[in-house]
This record gives sequence, structure tokens and C-alpha cells, in this order.
Amino acid sequence: MLMNRHLVKPDDFSVEEINSVLELGMDIKKNPQNYFNKCEGKLMATLFYEPSTRTRLSFEAAMNRLGGRIIGFSDPNASSVSKGETLEDTITIVSKYVDIITMRHPVSGAANQASAVCPLPFINAGDGGNQHPTQTLTDLLTIKSLKGDLNNLTIGMCGDLKYGRTVHSLAKAMSRYSGIKFVFISPDELSMPKSVKEDIDGVEFIETSSLEDSIGNLDILYMTRIQRERFEDKNEYERLKDSYVLDMEKMDKANKDMLVLHPLPRVNEISVEVDSDPRAVYFEQAQYGMYVRMALIMKLLGID
Amino acid sequence: MLMNRHLVKPDDFSVEEINSVLELGMDIKKNPQNYFNKCEGKLMATLFYEPSTRTRLSFEAAMNRLGGRIIGFSDPNASSVSKGETLEDTITIVSKYVDIITMRHPVSGAANQASAVCPLPFINAGDGGNQHPTQTLTDLLTIKSLKGDLNNLTIGMCGDLKYGRTVHSLAKAMSRYSGIKFVFISPDELSMPKSVKEDIDGVEFIETSSLEDSIGNLDILYMTRIQRERFEDKNEYERLKDSYVLDMEKMDKANKDMLVLHPLPRVNEISVEVDSDPRAVYFEQAQYGMYVRMALIMKLLGID
Amino acid sequence: MLMNRHLVKPDDFSVEEINSVLELGMDIKKNPQNYFNKCEGKLMATLFYEPSTRTRLSFEAAMNRLGGRIIGFSDPNASSVSKGETLEDTITIVSKYVDIITMRHPVSGAANQASAVCPLPFINAGDGGNQHPTQTLTDLLTIKSLKGDLNNLTIGMCGDLKYGRTVHSLAKAMSRYSGIKFVFISPDELSMPKSVKEDIDGVEFIETSSLEDSIGNLDILYMTRIQRERFEDKNEYERLKDSYVLDMEKMDKANKDMLVLHPLPRVNEISVEVDSDPRAVYFEQAQYGMYVRMALIMKLLGID
Repeated sequence: MLMNRHLVKPDDFSVEEINSVLELGMDIKKNPQNYFNKCEGKLMATLFYEPSTRTRLSFEAAMNRLGGRIIGFSDPNASSVSKGETLEDTITIVSKYVDIITMRHPVSGAANQASAVCPLPFINAGDGGNQHPTQTLTDLLTIKSLKGDLNNLTIGMCGDLKYGRTVHSLAKAMSRYSGIKFVFISPDELSMPKSVKEDIDGVEFIETSSLEDSIGNLDILYMTRIQRERFEDKNEYERLKDSYVLDMEKMDKANKDMLVLHPLPRVNEISVEVDSDPRAVYFEQAQYGMYVRMALIMKLLGID
Repeated sequence: MLMNRHLVKPDDFSVEEINSVLELGMDIKKNPQNYFNKCEGKLMATLFYEPSTRTRLSFEAAMNRLGGRIIGFSDPNASSVSKGETLEDTITIVSKYVDIITMRHPVSGAANQASAVCPLPFINAGDGGNQHPTQTLTDLLTIKSLKGDLNNLTIGMCGDLKYGRTVHSLAKAMSRYSGIKFVFISPDELSMPKSVKEDIDGVEFIETSSLEDSIGNLDILYMTRIQRERFEDKNEYERLKDSYVLDMEKMDKANKDMLVLHPLPRVNEISVEVDSDPRAVYFEQAQYGMYVRMALIMKLLGID
Repeated sequence: MLMNRHLVKPDDFSVEEINSVLELGMDIKKNPQNYFNKCEGKLMATLFYEPSTRTRLSFEAAMNRLGGRIIGFSDPNASSVSKGETLEDTITIVSKYVDIITMRHPVSGAANQASAVCPLPFINAGDGGNQHPTQTLTDLLTIKSLKGDLNNLTIGMCGDLKYGRTVHSLAKAMSRYSGIKFVFISPDELSMPKSVKEDIDGVEFIETSSLEDSIGNLDILYMTRIQRERFEDKNEYERLKDSYVLDMEKMDKANKDMLVLHPLPRVNEISVEVDSDPRAVYFEQAQYGMYVRMALIMKLLGID
């Protein structure tokens, strides 16, 4: 049972629990008209201690699509909410007003600290470089919906695998399913950290620096952005950058049913020409993000 | 049919289509209780890339008055929504969450750019100095409601006619009706641009610098603000400024049924003493702005 | 009758009127399910000319809990709403959109100025150092709910009594009930102003600088914060500061049914260890703030 639970990091939920959220998300997508007033009379706080417009809009769309209401703040200076008061006091007070709390915070660990005193369902909408579990749920729902299954998949992750919170969480989450293979595609400087490779212990993985050579073997290609600032040797960056840009030339080497995901925003790591390819599902992925948040809110509020 | 259409500039709609919006707006004003849940279950995005509190509140009041919901942003830094992503990507993503998009943007032409990729109804809530079509609809609904007709009117436009986006659009929009005469009242330096005078081709107009001499002939007086900064010769400004301030002395020379409109905010170009004159309808005009936006939203969503 | 009235300062309402708001607030707390759609179709403006996230969230939670809707602004720069327009014009325009207006403003007297032109129910959510009447209603509802009565109470007020708007208003409000005694506990430098002591004319009060010596006599202890900046002599502050921090040692000297209130945010004037004492009701107080605002909104809108 997920009622009244907290979601601070993806593995706070068992595989079974995650699957129940995904199943509900799929039904919401199929029959949205059945859900438009499920949360009538319910109130959610969206406490965004740093601006993250995309994530906030997704949560607020989700709650509105369920007929629930929202209060909150979203501006960088909203930390003025505290006037020196502790995060714990703020959460305690807000919990007197609402039925469920979603929080985004720039400090790693803030979600743990807040959820520890929260007597209501609590959702971490990102705490610094630490966790962003609803992004992981979004990725899982996208794959499950479009592939039909989360088992028996070869998943390529491409780009900045060293600093990418999103791919770390997804790798861990996918490693809980069976028949999974990973292909980690990155420059040496940005390769998948040892800690993540340990976390997915038992799951087969290949490391390579070539997207071109490996794209033909993938069921899923999860793209991320490579930032120039990450390279000590700027010449190295200039030499590499184009090999990690997904364009139609590379797409032509991929399987017909390979899916391209991206957590967005996309800058230039995927050419605009790819957008019209039916395998490019990153915009649908954003919509799955709304559906999975609807499902999550319902489950935590104990609403069927 | 207006369903699923975009409104980027006033003449995107035919006269007939505009009239259908105005008719609906008039019925909403008369019977608001019939409309309070017309958009239940519908979600609108208000994407304000520059603050424009007045326009935003009008749109959000409109959607709420219809029982619909809103997500969006309104702060100057909300451009952080993009983190380098294109406007096209932002619109594409937001279109996955909502049913209709309203956008305000500081850059001329941004509304065109955004609407080109928007698969949903799209409303331009102002793009730089370019277009602000819902202001024009507001003006038309005010005139139609209070005069009973949009034909056979002598319309004075007073103030800064050179830079005033509002009066340019209104002149063009009114020129599509019959029996219209314009009186353009401005200092020489701020007279109506040639391009606008060409656009209203065929409609009779007079140009004058005296509000006092022409006010007696008008059915409508549309006031705008004259900014000191617009004058190269500051002495000229000092000499002229009072002659474009509407006060009761000037109102005494006007017809009993002349209406005074103003897009607001008013600074000092209309004396506060005029507010209590029944011919001063600029505050009612703000309310018509809400009603016409309600009508527009319903039409674009295909709701009757 | 409170319908269509303004609330600018606590004594705008008679004792009888205040009691009717409190009675309704108590029923809302008891039977929230009876109220979730009482304000369906009603629209409230929350015009916050300075950020006050806590107060805004309380008002917005209240209106949402009643099924009503909200438009407004909350950011420091939202004064851009005016672009040079007067507060009176802004209120007049917003009154064309909504059914009730709540305003927070940094300038003392702004609430008077705004309410003077407001044709709708108007609630002052704080104007500078002047008035914050819904905080007083919050305090009254907390006391009435948890003590059962507003008469026959010994009320201690501790901390900065000189500058504390909250305690001034509460002292005046409580002085209208019978059998009230006040104990004003503060350093000499921060004692209750003469004007307040005159306002509560006829009510018995004691002034003391010792919280420890007086806590045993109290039914209510209303804590406020003492700011270092208020002291000319910093050594005096260092000497005194701990004697005004409420901890369990002091709580042990208090009656078993004494209640501790605080307007929040709390910084360090109440030790965290006190939070788990059942007499510590400052977080419940925040919730009563939501309920009393729900009651107030309903009364001003004439909804039963």
C-alpha cells in the first residue's frame, strides 16, 4: 500500500509498488475522462525553493487534471517563506493546510530532512544533485507504455553519464527488472561512475565511446546533454561533440523500433530533424511525466 | 468555425468570426451563471515571458470564471523555463499538458513562431510592440455592448497615435465595419503612421491636433497616454501636455452619449474627476476584457 | 451582518460579529466536509505587494478548501501591476474581475486607501506595521477553540511588546471580553506602549521582566521574538536573551492547561523540545488561521 507514503528516492518503492503506479498511469492515459475529479476537495502544496518551471508545471497539470487544487511558491526568493525558520517548521505548518506536499530544493538531502517531519504524503521533486524520483517514474512509464514491458531490453545511455542524475537513477531502477542489458556510451571523461556500476550488480553492461557503432543494438536510446564545461581539454570537446549529437544519419543505423528518450530540455544533442521520426518519443515522454504524477498523487492519497 | 484556431493578430479572424465571439461575450455578461462550469476539466497554460499582471489576471479570471484550470508562469525570470531550449520545444512540451495556450512574450514575432508549432488553440497575449489582439476584442466588445452596434460611428483616437499598438489595431479592426469615420487627434510628432492610414483604406478620417475642437463630434473617444520621452523638443511637450489631458471642462463640450475608452493603465491623461461621469467607461472596459476572453476561450475550445 | 463588509483592522467588527466568525470557524474545523464547495463559482484576488508566503498560503488554502478560485500576484516586483497607476485604479480594475479582494501592502495605511474605493468585500492581509486583523482572528479562534471561552483568562504576552503589532492587536481584542487579566513580560526597553495600555482601559494588567516568575499564573502564554537589533546596549541583550527563550525547564513551572501560542515563524525563542508538549499549540494555531479565513471569506460573501 502506497497510501500516506513518502517518495524521496526511486527505491523507496518496491518493484511491485512501482508497477502499480505505472499500471494506473497507463489507465489514466487511456481513459483520462475517468479521472478528472478523482482528487476533488484535495489540496497539494508545491514548495519550489528553486525555480524548475518544467517540473512544477508537470505536477500542477497533474493535480489539476485530477480536479485537485494547488497552493505553493515557485520563485527563487520564496525562501523568504522561512524568515529564518527551519525547513522542518515550514513543512509542519504547510502540512496543516494541505493533503500532500511536493518539494523542490537546491540542497542535497533537503528532501530527507523535510520528509522526516512530514505527517502527510511527501514527494521529492528534486533535491540538488541528489534525487529526482518522479523523473525515473516518467522514464519507466514511457518505456513500459511504448515497449509493453520493462524486461528484456537493451538500453543505451549516451552523453554525460558521470554527472547525470537521471541516468544513474534510471540504471538502478531498470536493473531491478530481468533480461536487461546496458550500453553506456560516453567520452572517457564522462563515463558511468563506479558506484552506479556496483549498484546495478549482476546486470550486463558494455562501455563504449561510440554512439555510431552501438546504436544498432539498442531497444532504447536515452540521450543526455554533454556540457562543454565538463571537459578539461577543450580541444577534446571540440573533437568529440558531434559524435554525440543524434541526427538522422545515426538514426538510420538504429532498429526500426528503437525509442529515443531524453529528460529534456534538449539543447543541441538531438537534431531537430529527428523530432518527426516516430522513434523520437521525448515529447510524449513529457506527457507520460504528467500521467505518472497523476497516478502517484492518487496512490499516495489512497484514492482509487 | 473557431475551434482549434490560433489568434495571433486581430485579422486572423473574419468579421463574422469576431462577431460570433462578441455575441457570446455579450451573453456571458448578461447570464454569467450559465457559464461558470463550461470549461470544467479544461486546462489553460498562461506562459508570461514578461510580467503583464493586468493581462494575466484578466485571462486567469476568465478561465476560472468558466470553471477551467490554469498552470503557468508570470515572473521575469521564468525564461529559466527554457535553460537554452527553443521556444518551439517549450510550446511542444506544454502542449502535452494542457488544452489551450496563452503566451505573452517581449519579442515581436514570438507569437507567430510559437503558434506555428502549437497543436492546440493558441492565444497571443501580446508579443513586444507587435500585436495584442485580445485588447482589440476588448475594445470591440465594449463599443458593441454600450453602443449597440459597431457600424456608423465617429471614433476619435487621442494621444500618442504613432507608437500606440492599441489604436493601430483598433483602427484596422473598426475599418472593417460600415459608416465609420475616424478623428485622429495628436501632436504632429505623434501622428498616425502612414501604414495604418493605408490599412484603413476607404474609411474617412480627419487629422487634428486639437482635442478641444473635435471632441464635440465624437461617438467614441479612445484616449492613450503621451509620454514625455517621445518628444525631441521638451518645450513642445510642456506646451502641449495639458491639451491632451481629458478633464470635465473638455467633457462638457462632448455629446451626452459619447463614450470614453482607455486601454489602461491610466496615468494622468484622464483626470480622476472624469471617473464618475457615466460616459467614462474605461473601468467597465476592463470587465469586458474578461468577458471577451471567456468567449474566446470557449470558441477556441469548441465549447458552446 | 458581515456581508460585503471590509476588514481593515480588528475592531472594524463588533464583538458579536467576531463571535459569529469564530463560531463558523469552529464548525468548519469540526465538519470540513460540509464546506468544500461553499464558494464554488467565487473568485478571490490575492494582491500581495510584498512577499508574505505564509499569509498568502493560508488565504489561498482557505479559498481552495471552500471550492473557490484565486487570481493574484505574490512577487516583490508585482508592483509592476501599476506602471504608475494609482492603488485606487488597480483596486477598481481588479474589482471588475473578482468577488472578494485580499491585499498585503508594505505601506501603513494602504489598506484604508484601497478599501475606500473597493465595491467588494475587502480583507487587509497586513499593511506595513499597521494592522493584520486576520492574525488576531486566528489567535482568538485558537483560544476559543482550545479554552472553550474567551472570557476569564489570564494572558501572558512575552517578548518584544513594544514593536509587536500582533500582541498590540490581540491585547485590544481580548480586552473586549470579561474577566481578562494581562501579564506583560518583557525587558524594560521593549515594554508594552502606553497607547496600548490606554486602549485596554479597565482591564487589569501586570508588567514584569521575568517569564520564569510569572509563567505559573497564566492560562495563555503568547510568545514573540526578541530581536537583537532592538537593543541599544548589546550587553543587555546578551544578559537577557536566554530568560525569554521558552524551554522545558520553564514549561515545568507552568499550569497543566496553559497554552503556548506564537504567530510564527518561530526562530529560537521557543526550544524545539517544547514542540512535543501538548500545551504547545502554535502549529495548530496556523491551522486555525486557515479555518478562520474560511469563515471570514464566507461571511463577507454572504454565504452560509
